[in-house]
Amino acid sequence: MTEHVDIREVSLRDGLQIEKPIPLSAKLELLAAVAATGVREVEATAFVSPSKVPSMADAAELSAELHNYPDIEFSALVASPNGAKRAVAAGLRSIEYVVSPSDAFSNANVGRSSAEATDQIHEIVTIAHDSDAAVEVIVATAWDCPFEGPTPPQRVLDIATAARDQGVDRFSIADTIGTTTPRRVSSLIEQLRPVIGDMPLGGHFHNTRGAGLASAYAAVSSGVTRLDASVGGLGGCPFAPGATGNIATEDLVYLLRDSDIDVDVDLQAAIAAAEVAKSVVGHDLPSALLRAGDRMHN
Amino acid sequence: MTEHVDIREVSLRDGLQIEKPIPLSAKLELLAAVAATGVREVEATAFVSPSKVPSMADAAELSAELHNYPDIEFSALVASPNGAKRAVAAGLRSIEYVVSPSDAFSNANVGRSSAEATDQIHEIVTIAHDSDAAVEVIVATAWDCPFEGPTPPQRVLDIATAARDQGVDRFSIADTIGTTTPRRVSSLIEQLRPVIGDMPLGGHFHNTRGAGLASAYAAVSSGVTRLDASVGGLGGCPFAPGATGNIATEDLVYLLRDSDIDVDVDLQAAIAAAEVAKSVVGHDLPSALLRAGDRMHN
Repeated sequence: MTEHVDIREVSLRDGLQIEKPIPLSAKLELLAAVAATGVREVEATAFVSPSKVPSMADAAELSAELHNYPDIEFSALVASPNGAKRAVAAGLRSIEYVVSPSDAFSNANVGRSSAEATDQIHEIVTIAHDSDAAVEVIVATAWDCPFEGPTPPQRVLDIATAARDQGVDRFSIADTIGTTTPRRVSSLIEQLRPVIGDMPLGGHFHNTRGAGLASAYAAVSSGVTRLDASVGGLGGCPFAPGATGNIATEDLVYLLRDSDIDVDVDLQAAIAAAEVAKSVVGHDLPSALLRAGDRMHN
Repeated sequence: MTEHVDIREVSLRDGLQIEKPIPLSAKLELLAAVAATGVREVEATAFVSPSKVPSMADAAELSAELHNYPDIEFSALVASPNGAKRAVAAGLRSIEYVVSPSDAFSNANVGRSSAEATDQIHEIVTIAHDSDAAVEVIVATAWDCPFEGPTPPQRVLDIATAARDQGVDRFSIADTIGTTTPRRVSSLIEQLRPVIGDMPLGGHFHNTRGAGLASAYAAVSSGVTRLDASVGGLGGCPFAPGATGNIATEDLVYLLRDSDIDVDVDLQAAIAAAEVAKSVVGHDLPSALLRAGDRMHN
């Protein structure tokens, strides 16, 4: 079992992506609360189509404010070489590029087949490395696609092989629709290990079917050292009140603390940030700790 | 890893205990839905003080209806020898006796010290076995007490030793206030193993801090073969909307199915029973599957 897990706070991007757009000032309020948790990595925004994802239309404006937090490594999600160019132009030095192994999901999401999206890794890496930015390839729908069903693990391994061969810096597997469970997590990671070599491996889990934390713990038990999480569990579908999206940062920190796994995020500060998240989006969030608080005598 | 887990449905007792009392007819509606899941064990009620727990005041009346489900093993919770007498007189053939290792909790809950409650195991076993009923000792607050903080594992081992020596048939550990996490679960089970001998070991988890399913999975990974769960996750505090109580049966079944662990409970029937639970209590329930449903292409 690893002794330290790097938590990346994704509330500002994955958390807000499907929310109604909120003002930049509200995002900056959330960012300040998130920064106060001590977290070292924050997914700040996405450089994608403003018409498709209106909540991320202020990507450049938000990026201009990030210099206020010099101790945090900020990343941005991109879906194309053009997005990568915009991201590095805006000053980002960590680029997330998402590839789905499902053609149906890939076409619906980015208008390209999985193979075409995989082929673009080379161009993304070139753009990023030319600006001294790091590239992380994230495999979306790594376990299940909403259209095609279970993802054949070999397709994830193929993307990992391409990422490794193209000099990608980090690799992550994402349970985009919140369907995976601990055993499937461990199984995929075991298959990935011989392929990814030295690339740090990250996991991104949603709690949609209640198994998000169990899956995250299984990932850590299998050697994952980087986990995405969102204060408050921000990221649930706004049309299904209470439905859960990303695993909640504070719930994850609580569980990892008990496992003697060190994290940079302070639990009480994460709960306070979850309160801010709840306030800026204006509705309840699914986090357990936000309701129950830490146990006494911890 | 075990190949089969016995799920005990606890919605009728632990699920309803802190709800406003509902009519017997509503309980029978929930029971019918629960029985339709295929579950083989159901915690039906509690023979405790009707003034302290008004929602269980109809224990005898409900028990009179259980003969309609001859394939289900029904159990009832008791807190004293007197409760055990009432339970066997009402026809129950499976008695749960709860002991807390914390004096503060034990005194608050049953008006006796932990040692006094432990000493009563002998009398409970005599009453039950004289009526061919089985006895399960459940350790409440097995990991944390809301008053005393972390429970010293040795106190749980002491209760287990007493239970074994007194001829108890089953033994369970309960995370009454929903604070435990996977590593603490595995640790306690490892310490219990040499003590409990042949007694089947069960686990009872609440999802109050989001880690209920992760803890249940850790328990199964450590050899637990019996898990309590409640359709809909019924059992949350009615004064904290959305706060979660017992792990949801349907969420547990979903996770175990993916782990190639056989259960008697049908997933879709459990979701249907969760809908009934939601209807009879008249408010939302925290179950994830109740909102999200099974994944497609399972």
